[in-house]
Amino acid sequence: MACRICHSVLVTGSNRGIGLEIVRQLVDSPSGPVKIFASCRDPDGPRTEELQELAQKHQDVITVVQLVKNFSLDICSSASIKEALKLVENEVQEKGLNLIINNAGVNIPGSLADTEKSMMVDVYTSNVVGPMMVAKDFRALLCKAAAQFSHQTSMSCKRSAIINVSTLLSSITICPENFSLAPMYPYRVSKAALNMLTRCLAEDLKKDGILVMALHPGWVQTEMGGSEAPLTAAESVKGMLEVIANLTEKETGTLLDWKGNSIPW
Amino acid sequence: MACRICHSVLVTGSNRGIGLEIVRQLVDSPSGPVKIFASCRDPDGPRTEELQELAQKHQDVITVVQLVKNFSLDICSSASIKEALKLVENEVQEKGLNLIINNAGVNIPGSLADTEKSMMVDVYTSNVVGPMMVAKDFRALLCKAAAQFSHQTSMSCKRSAIINVSTLLSSITICPENFSLAPMYPYRVSKAALNMLTRCLAEDLKKDGILVMALHPGWVQTEMGGSEAPLTAAESVKGMLEVIANLTEKETGTLLDWKGNSIPW
Repeated sequence: MACRICHSVLVTGSNRGIGLEIVRQLVDSPSGPVKIFASCRDPDGPRTEELQELAQKHQDVITVVQLVKNFSLDICSSASIKEALKLVENEVQEKGLNLIINNAGVNIPGSLADTEKSMMVDVYTSNVVGPMMVAKDFRALLCKAAAQFSHQTSMSCKRSAIINVSTLLSSITICPENFSLAPMYPYRVSKAALNMLTRCLAEDLKKDGILVMALHPGWVQTEMGGSEAPLTAAESVKGMLEVIANLTEKETGTLLDWKGNSIPW
Repeated sequence: MACRICHSVLVTGSNRGIGLEIVRQLVDSPSGPVKIFASCRDPDGPRTEELQELAQKHQDVITVVQLVKNFSLDICSSASIKEALKLVENEVQEKGLNLIINNAGVNIPGSLADTEKSMMVDVYTSNVVGPMMVAKDFRALLCKAAAQFSHQTSMSCKRSAIINVSTLLSSITICPENFSLAPMYPYRVSKAALNMLTRCLAEDLKKDGILVMALHPGWVQTEMGGSEAPLTAAESVKGMLEVIANLTEKETGTLLDWKGNSIPW
Protein backbone atom coordinates (compact mmCIF):
# COMPACT_ATOMS: atom_id res chain seq x y z
CA MET A 1 0.00 0.00 0.00
CA ALA A 2 1.22 3.49 -0.80
CA CYS A 3 2.27 5.63 2.17
CA ARG A 4 -0.72 7.79 3.15
CA ILE A 5 -0.48 11.58 2.95
CA CYS A 6 -1.93 11.58 6.51
CA HIS A 7 -4.53 9.74 8.57
CA SER A 8 -7.12 12.53 8.76
CA VAL A 9 -7.77 15.92 7.22
CA LEU A 10 -10.29 18.75 7.58
CA VAL A 11 -10.90 20.77 4.40
CA THR A 12 -12.94 23.97 4.81
CA GLY A 13 -15.05 25.51 2.05
CA SER A 14 -15.23 22.11 0.39
CA ASN A 15 -18.56 22.29 -1.44
CA ARG A 16 -17.13 23.88 -4.57
CA GLY A 17 -14.09 25.20 -6.41
CA ILE A 18 -10.68 24.33 -5.04
CA GLY A 19 -12.05 22.86 -1.81
CA LEU A 20 -14.26 20.35 -3.62
CA GLU A 21 -11.40 19.40 -5.93
CA ILE A 22 -9.10 18.80 -2.94
CA VAL A 23 -11.65 16.39 -1.43
CA ARG A 24 -12.12 14.69 -4.81
CA GLN A 25 -8.41 14.13 -5.44
CA LEU A 26 -7.77 13.02 -1.86
CA VAL A 27 -10.53 10.44 -1.92
CA ASP A 28 -9.49 9.19 -5.36
CA SER A 29 -5.84 8.75 -4.41
CA PRO A 30 -4.53 5.40 -3.14
CA SER A 31 -2.43 7.40 -0.70
CA GLY A 32 -5.37 9.56 0.45
CA PRO A 33 -6.37 9.92 4.11
CA VAL A 34 -8.51 7.42 6.00
CA LYS A 35 -10.78 10.22 7.17
CA ILE A 36 -11.73 13.38 5.26
CA PHE A 37 -13.84 15.97 7.07
CA ALA A 38 -15.33 18.16 4.34
CA SER A 39 -16.76 21.30 5.86
CA CYS A 40 -18.95 23.98 4.38
CA ARG A 41 -21.28 26.63 5.69
CA ASP A 42 -24.54 24.93 4.92
CA PRO A 43 -24.27 21.23 3.97
CA ASP A 44 -27.97 21.05 3.17
CA GLY A 45 -28.06 24.32 1.26
CA PRO A 46 -27.78 24.99 -2.47
CA ARG A 47 -24.57 24.24 -4.36
CA THR A 48 -23.58 21.32 -2.17
CA GLU A 49 -24.95 18.55 -4.42
CA GLU A 50 -21.57 17.54 -5.82
CA LEU A 51 -20.01 17.27 -2.38
CA GLN A 52 -22.98 15.35 -1.00
CA GLU A 53 -22.86 12.95 -3.94
CA LEU A 54 -19.13 12.38 -3.45
CA ALA A 55 -19.63 11.83 0.28
CA GLN A 56 -22.44 9.38 -0.45
CA LYS A 57 -20.14 7.41 -2.74
CA HIS A 58 -17.34 7.32 -0.16
CA GLN A 59 -19.24 7.11 3.09
CA ASP A 60 -16.42 5.33 4.88
CA VAL A 61 -13.97 8.18 4.16
CA ILE A 62 -15.84 11.47 3.79
CA THR A 63 -17.82 13.13 6.57
CA VAL A 64 -19.56 16.36 5.66
CA VAL A 65 -19.30 18.87 8.51
CA GLN A 66 -21.07 22.16 9.01
CA LEU A 67 -18.62 24.95 9.82
CA VAL A 68 -19.80 28.52 9.55
CA LYS A 69 -16.75 30.31 8.27
CA ASN A 70 -18.41 33.47 7.05
CA PHE A 71 -19.39 33.97 10.60
CA SER A 72 -19.70 37.70 10.47
CA LEU A 73 -23.25 36.79 9.57
CA ASP A 74 -23.63 34.33 12.38
CA ILE A 75 -23.58 35.15 16.04
CA CYS A 76 -23.39 31.43 16.81
CA SER A 77 -20.08 31.05 15.01
CA SER A 78 -18.05 29.85 17.98
CA ALA A 79 -20.72 27.33 18.78
CA SER A 80 -20.55 26.12 15.17
CA ILE A 81 -16.78 25.56 15.34
CA LYS A 82 -17.12 23.77 18.65
CA GLU A 83 -19.88 21.55 17.23
CA ALA A 84 -17.63 20.63 14.29
CA LEU A 85 -14.77 19.98 16.70
CA LYS A 86 -16.89 17.58 18.76
CA LEU A 87 -17.91 15.66 15.64
CA VAL A 88 -14.32 15.36 14.37
CA GLU A 89 -13.02 14.47 17.84
CA ASN A 90 -15.55 11.70 18.10
CA GLU A 91 -14.38 10.15 14.84
CA VAL A 92 -10.62 10.45 15.18
CA GLN A 93 -10.49 9.68 18.91
CA GLU A 94 -6.97 9.29 20.30
CA LYS A 95 -5.33 9.58 16.87
CA GLY A 96 -6.14 13.30 16.75
CA LEU A 97 -6.44 15.32 13.56
CA ASN A 98 -3.39 15.57 11.31
CA LEU A 99 -4.17 18.23 8.80
CA ILE A 100 -6.38 21.30 8.38
CA ILE A 101 -6.65 22.95 4.98
CA ASN A 102 -8.22 26.38 5.57
CA ASN A 103 -9.51 26.85 2.06
CA ALA A 104 -12.75 28.73 2.77
CA GLY A 105 -12.55 32.39 1.86
CA VAL A 106 -14.40 35.20 0.19
CA ASN A 107 -13.56 38.02 -2.17
CA ILE A 108 -15.56 41.21 -2.43
CA PRO A 109 -13.73 43.11 -5.18
CA GLY A 110 -13.57 46.79 -4.41
CA SER A 111 -11.73 49.91 -5.47
CA LEU A 112 -11.05 52.57 -2.82
CA ALA A 113 -14.18 54.48 -3.76
CA ASP A 114 -16.36 51.34 -3.76
CA THR A 115 -15.16 49.86 -0.50
CA GLU A 116 -17.31 50.35 2.57
CA LYS A 117 -16.35 49.62 6.15
CA SER A 118 -18.63 46.57 6.31
CA MET A 119 -16.95 45.01 3.24
CA MET A 120 -13.54 45.31 4.89
CA VAL A 121 -14.79 43.78 8.13
CA ASP A 122 -16.74 40.94 6.48
CA VAL A 123 -13.85 39.82 4.27
CA TYR A 124 -11.39 40.02 7.18
CA THR A 125 -13.73 38.02 9.39
CA SER A 126 -14.09 35.23 6.82
CA ASN A 127 -10.52 35.14 5.55
CA VAL A 128 -8.55 35.75 8.75
CA VAL A 129 -10.62 35.49 11.92
CA GLY A 130 -12.27 32.25 10.71
CA PRO A 131 -8.98 30.37 10.15
CA MET A 132 -7.66 31.77 13.43
CA MET A 133 -10.63 30.54 15.44
CA VAL A 134 -10.39 27.14 13.73
CA ALA A 135 -6.68 26.96 14.67
CA LYS A 136 -7.48 27.99 18.23
CA ASP A 137 -10.29 25.49 18.75
CA PHE A 138 -8.69 22.57 16.86
CA ARG A 139 -5.23 23.07 18.36
CA ALA A 140 -5.66 20.36 21.01
CA LEU A 141 -6.71 17.85 18.36
CA LEU A 142 -3.72 18.73 16.18
CA CYS A 143 -1.45 18.40 19.22
CA LYS A 144 -2.86 14.96 19.86
CA ALA A 145 -1.95 13.92 16.32
CA ALA A 146 1.50 15.48 16.60
CA ALA A 147 2.13 13.57 19.83
CA GLN A 148 1.72 10.23 17.97
CA PHE A 149 5.01 11.11 16.29
CA SER A 150 6.73 12.30 19.44
CA HIS A 151 9.72 10.10 18.72
CA GLN A 152 10.61 12.46 15.90
CA THR A 153 11.15 16.21 15.93
CA SER A 154 10.53 16.80 12.24
CA MET A 155 7.30 18.31 10.98
CA SER A 156 5.03 17.17 8.16
CA CYS A 157 1.39 17.07 7.12
CA LYS A 158 1.47 13.37 7.98
CA ARG A 159 2.21 14.40 11.55
CA SER A 160 0.29 17.65 12.09
CA ALA A 161 -0.16 20.77 9.95
CA ILE A 162 -2.30 23.78 9.11
CA ILE A 163 -2.36 24.96 5.48
CA ASN A 164 -3.89 28.41 4.91
CA VAL A 165 -4.95 29.00 1.33
CA SER A 166 -3.55 32.42 0.48
CA THR A 167 -2.94 34.15 -2.86
CA LEU A 168 -0.27 35.87 -4.89
CA LEU A 169 -2.28 39.03 -4.28
CA SER A 170 -1.37 38.75 -0.59
CA SER A 171 2.24 39.66 -1.31
CA ILE A 172 2.99 43.21 -0.15
CA THR A 173 6.30 43.00 -2.03
CA ILE A 174 4.70 42.11 -5.36
CA CYS A 175 1.64 44.41 -5.00
CA PRO A 176 2.93 47.20 -7.30
CA GLU A 177 3.21 44.65 -10.14
CA ASN A 178 -0.42 43.56 -10.08
CA PHE A 179 -2.37 46.23 -8.19
CA SER A 180 -3.86 47.94 -11.23
CA LEU A 181 -5.01 44.60 -12.68
CA ALA A 182 -7.00 43.79 -9.54
CA PRO A 183 -7.30 46.55 -6.93
CA MET A 184 -9.47 44.40 -4.57
CA TYR A 185 -8.71 46.27 -1.35
CA PRO A 186 -10.72 44.07 1.05
CA TYR A 187 -9.27 40.84 -0.37
CA ARG A 188 -5.60 41.89 -0.63
CA VAL A 189 -5.55 43.48 2.81
CA SER A 190 -7.19 40.43 4.41
CA LYS A 191 -4.81 37.99 2.72
CA ALA A 192 -1.71 39.93 3.84
CA ALA A 193 -3.21 39.69 7.32
CA LEU A 194 -3.68 35.93 6.81
CA ASN A 195 0.01 35.65 5.96
CA MET A 196 0.92 37.32 9.27
CA LEU A 197 -1.49 34.99 11.07
CA THR A 198 0.24 32.04 9.35
CA ARG A 199 3.64 33.28 10.44
CA CYS A 200 2.50 33.85 14.04
CA LEU A 201 0.88 30.42 14.24
CA ALA A 202 4.00 28.80 12.76
CA GLU A 203 6.11 30.31 15.54
CA ASP A 204 3.54 29.61 18.21
CA LEU A 205 2.81 25.97 17.33
CA LYS A 206 6.39 24.95 16.55
CA LYS A 207 6.78 23.65 20.08
CA ASP A 208 3.74 21.41 19.53
CA GLY A 209 5.25 19.93 16.36
CA ILE A 210 2.55 21.54 14.18
CA LEU A 211 3.64 22.84 10.78
CA VAL A 212 1.84 25.99 9.54
CA MET A 213 2.24 27.51 6.09
CA ALA A 214 0.36 29.50 3.43
CA LEU A 215 -0.25 28.23 -0.09
CA HIS A 216 -1.12 30.13 -3.29
CA PRO A 217 -3.26 27.89 -5.53
CA GLY A 218 -2.51 29.88 -8.68
CA TRP A 219 -5.12 31.73 -10.68
CA VAL A 220 -7.75 29.03 -11.03
CA GLN A 221 -10.92 28.62 -13.10
CA THR A 222 -13.43 28.74 -10.26
CA GLU A 223 -16.36 30.95 -9.39
CA MET A 224 -13.88 33.26 -7.65
CA GLY A 225 -11.12 33.06 -10.26
CA GLY A 226 -13.39 33.45 -13.28
CA SER A 227 -13.31 31.60 -16.59
CA GLU A 228 -10.34 33.50 -18.03
CA ALA A 229 -8.01 31.98 -15.42
CA PRO A 230 -5.18 29.91 -16.95
CA LEU A 231 -5.31 26.96 -14.52
CA THR A 232 -7.98 24.32 -14.01
CA ALA A 233 -8.88 23.40 -10.44
CA ALA A 234 -7.60 19.88 -11.15
CA GLU A 235 -4.13 21.12 -12.20
CA SER A 236 -3.87 23.52 -9.27
CA VAL A 237 -4.95 20.97 -6.67
CA LYS A 238 -2.64 18.30 -8.07
CA GLY A 239 0.26 20.71 -7.53
CA MET A 240 -0.96 21.85 -4.12
CA LEU A 241 -1.31 18.29 -2.80
CA GLU A 242 2.18 17.45 -4.00
CA VAL A 243 3.56 20.50 -2.23
CA ILE A 244 1.60 19.66 0.94
CA ALA A 245 2.75 16.04 0.96
CA ASN A 246 6.39 17.08 0.77
CA LEU A 247 6.40 19.79 3.43
CA THR A 248 9.05 19.57 6.15
CA GLU A 249 9.97 21.78 9.11
CA LYS A 250 11.94 23.94 6.67
CA GLU A 251 8.65 25.10 5.13
CA THR A 252 6.86 26.05 8.33
CA GLY A 253 6.04 29.77 8.27
CA THR A 254 6.49 30.13 4.52
CA LEU A 255 4.29 31.22 1.59
CA LEU A 256 4.62 28.90 -1.42
CA ASP A 257 2.75 28.57 -4.68
CA TRP A 258 1.15 25.38 -6.04
CA LYS A 259 4.44 24.45 -7.70
CA GLY A 260 6.39 24.85 -4.47
CA ASN A 261 8.00 28.16 -5.41
CA SER A 262 8.49 30.68 -2.63
CA ILE A 263 6.56 33.97 -2.75
CA PRO A 264 8.00 37.01 -0.93
CA TRP A 265 5.93 38.59 1.83
CA MET B 1 11.80 82.18 7.23
CA ALA B 2 12.50 78.48 7.23
CA CYS B 3 10.84 76.43 4.51
CA ARG B 4 7.65 74.93 5.97
CA ILE B 5 7.25 71.17 6.24
CA CYS B 6 3.82 71.71 4.62
CA HIS B 7 0.90 74.13 4.74
CA SER B 8 -1.59 71.89 6.54
CA VAL B 9 -1.65 68.58 8.37
CA LEU B 10 -4.20 66.29 10.01
CA VAL B 11 -2.87 64.20 12.91
CA THR B 12 -5.20 61.46 14.22
CA GLY B 13 -5.12 60.15 17.78
CA SER B 14 -3.50 63.40 18.88
CA ASN B 15 -4.67 63.69 22.47
CA ARG B 16 -1.82 61.64 23.90
CA GLY B 17 1.35 59.66 23.33
CA ILE B 18 3.02 59.99 19.95
CA GLY B 19 0.12 61.93 18.39
CA LEU B 20 0.23 64.66 21.02
CA GLU B 21 4.01 64.89 20.72
CA ILE B 22 3.74 65.28 16.93
CA VAL B 23 1.35 68.21 17.36
CA ARG B 24 3.60 69.72 20.05
CA GLN B 25 6.79 69.54 17.97
CA LEU B 26 5.03 70.77 14.82
CA VAL B 27 3.57 73.82 16.53
CA ASP B 28 6.88 74.60 18.26
CA SER B 29 8.92 74.41 15.06
CA PRO B 30 9.63 77.55 13.00
CA SER B 31 9.09 75.37 9.94
CA GLY B 32 5.83 73.88 11.24
CA PRO B 33 2.57 73.96 9.26
CA VAL B 34 0.23 76.95 9.11
CA LYS B 35 -2.69 74.71 10.03
CA ILE B 36 -2.67 71.67 12.29
CA PHE B 37 -5.88 69.64 12.60
CA ALA B 38 -5.51 67.58 15.73
CA SER B 39 -8.13 64.88 15.82
CA CYS B 40 -9.19 62.55 18.59
CA ARG B 41 -12.22 60.45 19.40
CA ASP B 42 -13.71 62.69 22.04
CA PRO B 43 -12.19 66.18 22.28
CA ASP B 44 -14.24 66.99 25.35
CA GLY B 45 -13.64 63.67 27.04
CA PRO B 46 -11.06 62.68 29.63
CA ARG B 47 -7.33 62.68 28.80
CA THR B 48 -7.58 65.53 26.33
CA GLU B 49 -6.52 68.33 28.70
CA GLU B 50 -2.97 68.60 27.36
CA LEU B 51 -4.15 68.83 23.77
CA GLN B 52 -6.86 71.35 24.63
CA GLU B 53 -4.32 73.46 26.53
CA LEU B 54 -1.89 73.36 23.61
CA ALA B 55 -4.65 74.27 21.17
CA GLN B 56 -5.73 77.13 23.41
CA LYS B 57 -2.15 78.50 23.41
CA HIS B 58 -1.89 78.26 19.60
CA GLN B 59 -5.42 79.05 18.51
CA ASP B 60 -4.28 80.39 15.17
CA VAL B 61 -2.57 77.10 14.22
CA ILE B 62 -4.26 74.17 16.00
CA THR B 63 -7.85 73.13 15.42
CA VAL B 64 -9.09 70.21 17.49
CA VAL B 65 -11.29 67.91 15.41
CA GLN B 66 -13.48 65.04 16.47
CA LEU B 67 -12.80 61.92 14.46
CA VAL B 68 -14.11 58.63 15.71
CA LYS B 69 -11.39 56.22 14.71
CA ASN B 70 -12.30 53.35 17.00
CA PHE B 71 -15.49 53.28 15.07
CA SER B 72 -16.31 49.67 15.68
CA LEU B 73 -18.05 51.16 18.66
CA ASP B 74 -19.80 53.84 16.69
CA ILE B 75 -22.41 53.28 14.05
CA CYS B 76 -22.12 56.94 13.06
CA SER B 77 -18.47 56.55 12.08
CA SER B 78 -18.80 57.56 8.45
CA ALA B 79 -20.80 60.59 9.48
CA SER B 80 -18.00 61.49 11.90
CA ILE B 81 -15.33 61.36 9.20
CA LYS B 82 -17.48 63.43 6.87
CA GLU B 83 -18.08 66.01 9.62
CA ALA B 84 -14.34 66.29 10.17
CA LEU B 85 -13.80 66.58 6.43
CA LYS B 86 -16.25 69.47 6.18
CA LEU B 87 -14.51 71.31 9.00
CA VAL B 88 -11.04 70.86 7.50
CA GLU B 89 -12.28 71.73 4.00
CA ASN B 90 -13.77 74.93 5.32
CA GLU B 91 -10.45 76.01 6.81
CA VAL B 92 -8.03 75.04 4.05
CA GLN B 93 -10.30 76.03 1.16
CA GLU B 94 -8.66 75.87 -2.28
CA LYS B 95 -5.23 75.03 -0.84
CA GLY B 96 -6.43 71.53 0.07
CA LEU B 97 -4.86 69.37 2.78
CA ASN B 98 -1.19 68.40 2.38
CA LEU B 99 -0.55 65.75 4.95
CA ILE B 100 -2.42 63.13 6.97
CA ILE B 101 -0.63 61.31 9.78
CA ASN B 102 -2.78 58.29 10.65
CA ASN B 103 -1.41 57.80 14.13
CA ALA B 104 -4.55 56.61 15.93
CA GLY B 105 -4.47 52.94 16.73
CA VAL B 106 -5.18 50.40 19.41
CA ASN B 107 -3.52 47.30 20.80
CA ILE B 108 -5.35 44.52 22.57
CA PRO B 109 -2.54 42.12 23.47
CA GLY B 110 -3.63 38.55 23.08
CA SER B 111 -2.18 35.05 22.85
CA LEU B 112 -3.97 32.52 20.63
CA ALA B 113 -5.93 31.15 23.58
CA ASP B 114 -6.90 34.63 24.82
CA THR B 115 -7.98 36.11 21.50
CA GLU B 116 -11.68 36.25 20.74
CA LYS B 117 -13.26 37.04 17.40
CA SER B 118 -14.44 40.46 18.61
CA MET B 119 -10.88 41.47 19.61
CA MET B 120 -9.62 40.66 16.12
CA VAL B 121 -12.41 42.63 14.48
CA ASP B 122 -12.17 45.65 16.81
CA VAL B 123 -8.41 46.06 16.39
CA TYR B 124 -8.65 45.63 12.60
CA THR B 125 -11.44 48.17 12.42
CA SER B 126 -9.46 50.78 14.34
CA ASN B 127 -6.02 50.13 12.87
CA VAL B 128 -6.89 49.38 9.23
CA VAL B 129 -10.46 50.26 8.29
CA GLY B 130 -10.22 53.64 10.04
CA PRO B 131 -7.14 54.85 8.09
CA MET B 132 -8.68 53.47 4.90
CA MET B 133 -11.94 55.37 5.34
CA VAL B 134 -9.97 58.54 6.19
CA ALA B 135 -7.93 58.09 2.98
CA LYS B 136 -11.09 57.49 0.97
CA ASP B 137 -12.99 60.49 2.30
CA PHE B 138 -10.03 62.93 2.40
CA ARG B 139 -8.67 61.89 -1.00
CA ALA B 140 -10.25 64.82 -2.85
CA LEU B 141 -8.77 67.29 -0.38
CA LEU B 142 -5.31 65.71 -0.73
CA CYS B 143 -5.69 65.84 -4.53
CA LYS B 144 -6.49 69.54 -4.29
CA ALA B 145 -3.26 70.13 -2.39
CA ALA B 146 -1.26 67.97 -4.82
CA ALA B 147 -2.65 69.96 -7.74
CA GLN B 148 -1.06 73.16 -6.36
CA PHE B 149 2.26 71.57 -7.31
CA SER B 150 1.12 70.30 -10.67
CA HIS B 151 4.16 71.88 -12.35
CA GLN B 152 6.24 69.15 -10.70
CA THR B 153 5.92 65.40 -10.79
CA SER B 154 7.87 64.70 -7.62
CA MET B 155 6.13 63.74 -4.41
CA SER B 156 6.64 65.05 -0.88
CA CYS B 157 4.76 65.75 2.34
CA LYS B 158 4.93 69.43 1.37
CA ARG B 159 2.84 68.54 -1.65
CA SER B 160 0.50 65.74 -0.51
CA ALA B 161 1.05 62.62 1.57
CA ILE B 162 -0.46 60.00 3.87
CA ILE B 163 1.73 58.57 6.64
CA ASN B 164 0.39 55.46 8.35
CA VAL B 165 1.94 54.80 11.74
CA SER B 166 2.88 51.14 11.67
CA THR B 167 5.27 49.09 13.83
CA LEU B 168 8.23 46.76 13.63
CA LEU B 169 5.79 44.06 14.80
CA SER B 170 3.99 44.45 11.44
CA SER B 171 6.88 42.83 9.60
CA ILE B 172 5.98 39.29 8.51
CA THR B 173 9.65 38.76 7.63
CA ILE B 174 10.92 39.69 11.10
CA CYS B 175 8.07 38.02 13.05
CA PRO B 176 10.02 34.88 14.09
CA GLU B 177 12.63 37.11 15.78
CA ASN B 178 10.19 38.86 18.10
CA PHE B 179 7.02 36.75 18.25
CA SER B 180 7.70 35.11 21.60
CA LEU B 181 8.47 38.49 23.20
CA ALA B 182 5.09 39.88 22.19
CA PRO B 183 2.58 37.43 20.68
CA MET B 184 -0.14 40.12 20.26
CA TYR B 185 -2.13 38.38 17.52
CA PRO B 186 -4.78 41.07 16.95
CA TYR B 187 -2.18 43.87 16.76
CA ARG B 188 0.41 42.13 14.58
CA VAL B 189 -2.16 40.82 12.13
CA SER B 190 -3.85 44.24 11.84
CA LYS B 191 -0.56 46.06 11.29
CA ALA B 192 0.54 43.67 8.51
CA ALA B 193 -2.84 44.43 6.95
CA LEU B 194 -2.14 48.18 7.37
CA ASN B 195 1.13 47.70 5.48
CA MET B 196 -0.76 46.14 2.57
CA LEU B 197 -3.27 49.00 2.69
CA THR B 198 -0.34 51.44 2.57
CA ARG B 199 1.13 49.68 -0.42
CA CYS B 200 -2.22 49.58 -2.26
CA LEU B 201 -2.87 53.27 -1.56
CA ALA B 202 0.65 54.18 -2.70
CA GLU B 203 0.01 52.51 -6.06
CA ASP B 204 -3.52 53.86 -6.33
CA LEU B 205 -2.76 57.50 -5.46
CA LYS B 206 0.51 57.77 -7.37
CA LYS B 207 -1.34 59.24 -10.33
CA ASP B 208 -2.74 61.94 -8.04
CA GLY B 209 0.73 62.90 -6.83
CA ILE B 210 -0.01 61.66 -3.31
CA LEU B 211 2.83 59.94 -1.45
CA VAL B 212 1.80 57.11 0.91
CA MET B 213 4.12 55.28 3.29
CA ALA B 214 4.22 53.49 6.65
CA LEU B 215 6.40 54.59 9.55
CA HIS B 216 7.58 52.67 12.62
CA PRO B 217 7.99 55.08 15.54
CA GLY B 218 10.28 52.78 17.50
CA TRP B 219 9.43 51.30 20.86
CA VAL B 220 8.29 54.40 22.70
CA GLN B 221 7.50 55.24 26.34
CA THR B 222 3.77 55.79 25.95
CA GLU B 223 0.67 54.24 27.45
CA MET B 224 0.83 51.64 24.66
CA GLY B 225 4.61 51.16 24.70
CA GLY B 226 4.96 50.95 28.46
CA SER B 227 7.58 52.51 30.73
CA GLU B 228 10.33 49.99 29.92
CA ALA B 229 10.51 51.24 26.32
CA PRO B 230 13.95 52.64 25.38
CA LEU B 231 12.77 55.74 23.46
CA THR B 232 11.01 58.85 24.71
CA ALA B 233 8.12 60.16 22.62
CA ALA B 234 10.17 63.33 22.02
CA GLU B 235 13.12 61.40 20.53
CA SER B 236 10.88 59.22 18.39
CA VAL B 237 8.83 62.11 17.02
CA LYS B 238 11.93 64.21 16.29
CA GLY B 239 13.18 61.35 14.11
CA MET B 240 9.79 60.68 12.52
CA LEU B 241 9.31 64.33 11.53
CA GLU B 242 12.77 64.43 9.99
CA VAL B 243 11.98 61.31 7.98
CA ILE B 244 8.60 62.73 6.92
CA ALA B 245 10.08 66.08 5.86
CA ASN B 246 12.62 64.37 3.61
CA LEU B 247 10.33 61.89 1.84
CA THR B 248 10.42 61.80 -1.95
CA GLU B 249 8.67 59.69 -4.59
CA LYS B 250 11.33 57.04 -3.94
CA GLU B 251 9.81 56.40 -0.53
CA THR B 252 6.20 56.02 -1.59
CA GLY B 253 4.96 52.53 -0.72
CA THR B 254 7.76 51.82 1.77
CA LEU B 255 7.96 50.96 5.47
CA LEU B 256 10.65 52.95 7.29
CA ASP B 257 11.59 53.36 10.92
CA TRP B 258 11.94 56.68 12.77
CA LYS B 259 15.59 56.88 11.70
CA GLY B 260 14.73 56.37 8.04
CA ASN B 261 15.89 52.75 7.88
CA SER B 262 13.91 50.40 5.69
CA ILE B 263 12.01 47.51 7.33
CA PRO B 264 11.25 44.38 5.24
CA TRP B 265 7.61 43.42 4.72
